[in-house]
Amino acid sequence: METKKLVAQMLQGNNRALARLISLLENRESQIAIMKEVSPHTGKAYTLGITGPPGVGKSTLISRLVSHIRKQGLTVGVLCVDPTSPFSGGSLLGDRIRMDEISQDPGVFIRSLATRHNLGGLSPTAREAIKLLDAAGKDIIIVETVGVGQVQWDIKKVADSVLVVLIPGLGDNIQIMKAGIMEIADIFVLNMADREGADDMLNELKLSFRPLNSTWQPPVIPTVSIFNEGICDLYAAVVAHRTFMEEEGLLQQNRRERDLYYLVEMVKTALEDEVERLLVEKEEFRKIGEQVKNTTMDPYTGADKMVKMILSGS
Amino acid sequence: METKKLVAQMLQGNNRALARLISLLENRESQIAIMKEVSPHTGKAYTLGITGPPGVGKSTLISRLVSHIRKQGLTVGVLCVDPTSPFSGGSLLGDRIRMDEISQDPGVFIRSLATRHNLGGLSPTAREAIKLLDAAGKDIIIVETVGVGQVQWDIKKVADSVLVVLIPGLGDNIQIMKAGIMEIADIFVLNMADREGADDMLNELKLSFRPLNSTWQPPVIPTVSIFNEGICDLYAAVVAHRTFMEEEGLLQQNRRERDLYYLVEMVKTALEDEVERLLVEKEEFRKIGEQVKNTTMDPYTGADKMVKMILSGS
Repeated sequence: METKKLVAQMLQGNNRALARLISLLENRESQIAIMKEVSPHTGKAYTLGITGPPGVGKSTLISRLVSHIRKQGLTVGVLCVDPTSPFSGGSLLGDRIRMDEISQDPGVFIRSLATRHNLGGLSPTAREAIKLLDAAGKDIIIVETVGVGQVQWDIKKVADSVLVVLIPGLGDNIQIMKAGIMEIADIFVLNMADREGADDMLNELKLSFRPLNSTWQPPVIPTVSIFNEGICDLYAAVVAHRTFMEEEGLLQQNRRERDLYYLVEMVKTALEDEVERLLVEKEEFRKIGEQVKNTTMDPYTGADKMVKMILSGS
Repeated sequence: METKKLVAQMLQGNNRALARLISLLENRESQIAIMKEVSPHTGKAYTLGITGPPGVGKSTLISRLVSHIRKQGLTVGVLCVDPTSPFSGGSLLGDRIRMDEISQDPGVFIRSLATRHNLGGLSPTAREAIKLLDAAGKDIIIVETVGVGQVQWDIKKVADSVLVVLIPGLGDNIQIMKAGIMEIADIFVLNMADREGADDMLNELKLSFRPLNSTWQPPVIPTVSIFNEGICDLYAAVVAHRTFMEEEGLLQQNRRERDLYYLVEMVKTALEDEVERLLVEKEEFRKIGEQVKNTTMDPYTGADKMVKMILSGS
C-alpha cells in the first residue's frame, strides 16, 4: 500500500517519492508491484544513452548537456551507472560525479545506480528506474554507462539514441573496442576536440563507420565540454536523430521490440531466481547439489532431473 | 546409438571420433547424451587457460608450450575460442592459428570453437569440449581465449590454472583491463620481453598485484616465444602452481565448485530454452507477446503470467 501512495506522489512530481521508489526497485516483489502501477504512465520521455571509455569526460559533458536542455524548458533525469570490479564490489572511479551547478535545480533529478557482476554494464534495475523517471514526467532521461566491448550493448536495450563519447589519442583502445562501439553509436561525440590529433580522429571516425541496415548516418560532433563548446550542436544532433526515428516509425517500433525483449528477459530472470530458491529450500534439489559436489552424480544427469521437476510443477 | 559408438572409439584414443563428438555438442540433446556417457571418464587432465588482449602472441606462445609439454611425454589438447563480433558474426582476427609444426603430431589435438554473443568469451560448448579431451586421455588441455573486461572471467570457470599474457607497451589498455586481468591470473606471462619497456612492465606487474584471499603469489614470467625463450620457466611455473593447488587441497575443491556452478547454469539454460520454445509454440505465450508488443499489456504483468504458467506445469 505504501507503494501506491509513493507512486501517486511521484506522478505529482515529488522527487523524494521518486528517489524512494528507485531504491525499492532493488526488492523484486516491490519492483513488480511498482512497475505494474507505473507502466500505464510511461512512454512520453526520450532516453539518451551516453557511453564511452573511462576518462573521456562524460560527466562534464552530461552536466553541460543538462544545462542546455533545461534552457529549452525541458526537465531532465540523469542515471549514472557506476562500474564495479567483479571482485571487490567497489567503484573503479570513485566519486566522479561533479554536477554541483545543476544538482540544485528542481527540474533535474540525478541518481547513481550500482552495477552487478558487470564491468560497466547496466544495473539490473536501470530499465525500471528509467520508466519511473518517465512516469514522473521527466522530458529527457540521460543514462550514463562506462564500458568496453560487449557490455556497451546494454545501453542499446534502453536508449532511444546512443551517444558514444571518445577523445583524441585513445589509440589502441579504439582498435579493441571498434567492433562494439561503431555499431551502437547513433551519434559520435569527439570530446576534448581542442587536443592534438582531433582532426585526424574526426576523419578516422567518419571514414571507419559503415551504417548497417540503416539510412541514418551517425554524425561526429566535436565538443570541448569543459569550455561548453559544441554542446548546442550536440543537442541539435540528438533532436535530428529523434526526428529521423519518428518520421521513419522507428521510435515506436524499437520501443515495442525492447518491451518484448524485456518480457522474455524478465521471465528468464524470474525462473533463475526460482532455481536459486529451490536449491536452498527444496530437499530434492539440495540432495542433487550434494551428489554433484561429491561426484556421485554427474552435473548433466543432475540438471536433467532438476529441469524436469521444475517444468512438471513438482 | 551412434553416440555410444563414437564415445567408445574416443575413449580408445581415436582423434576423429573426438572431433566428431565435439561437433555433436552443438546439438543440445546429443550434448546431454554424450556428456552422461563421458562424465565418469573425466577428472584426470589438467586444464590451462591462456588469455590476454589481441596481438600479444598467444598462438605462438601456445605452440611453443605444446612442443615443450610433448617433450615431457605428455599429450595435449588445444581449444582456441575465436572472438566474433556480435553484429557480423565474423572473426575479428582471421586465421590466426599457425601451428604447423605441432599439428602433425598425433599426441596433439587442436580445435577451434566459435563464440556466441561474446566478444572473446567462452563458447557455450567449451566446457563440454574440455571434458571430452579429458576423457580422451589428453594429459594437458590448453584453452585459449581473447578477451577484455568481464568476459575474461569465463576462463576462470573452466581452467585449473589461468595464464594472462601481456606485452610491454600495452599502456592504457592495462588501465582499462586491470580490474579484470589482475584478479584472474595465476601466472602472468610477459611475452615479447625483448622489447623496450619490458623491465618497467615487469616491475609494474609485480608491484601492482595484490593476491586476494590466497597464499599464492602469481609469478611474472618473461618470454620471447618467437625465439622459444622462457618457455621452460613458464611450464615450471605451471607445475609449481599445480603442486601448490594439490597440496592445499584447492584443485579438487575448485573443480567441485565449478561442477556445482555448472549444474545451476545448465538448469538455467534449459529453462531459458524452454521459454524460447514456449514463446513460439504455445498459444497463450504468443498471445501475451502480442499484447505486450501492441501495449495492451505491460511486460511486468505479462512476465508474471508466463512464469506462473511455467512453474505450475500448465
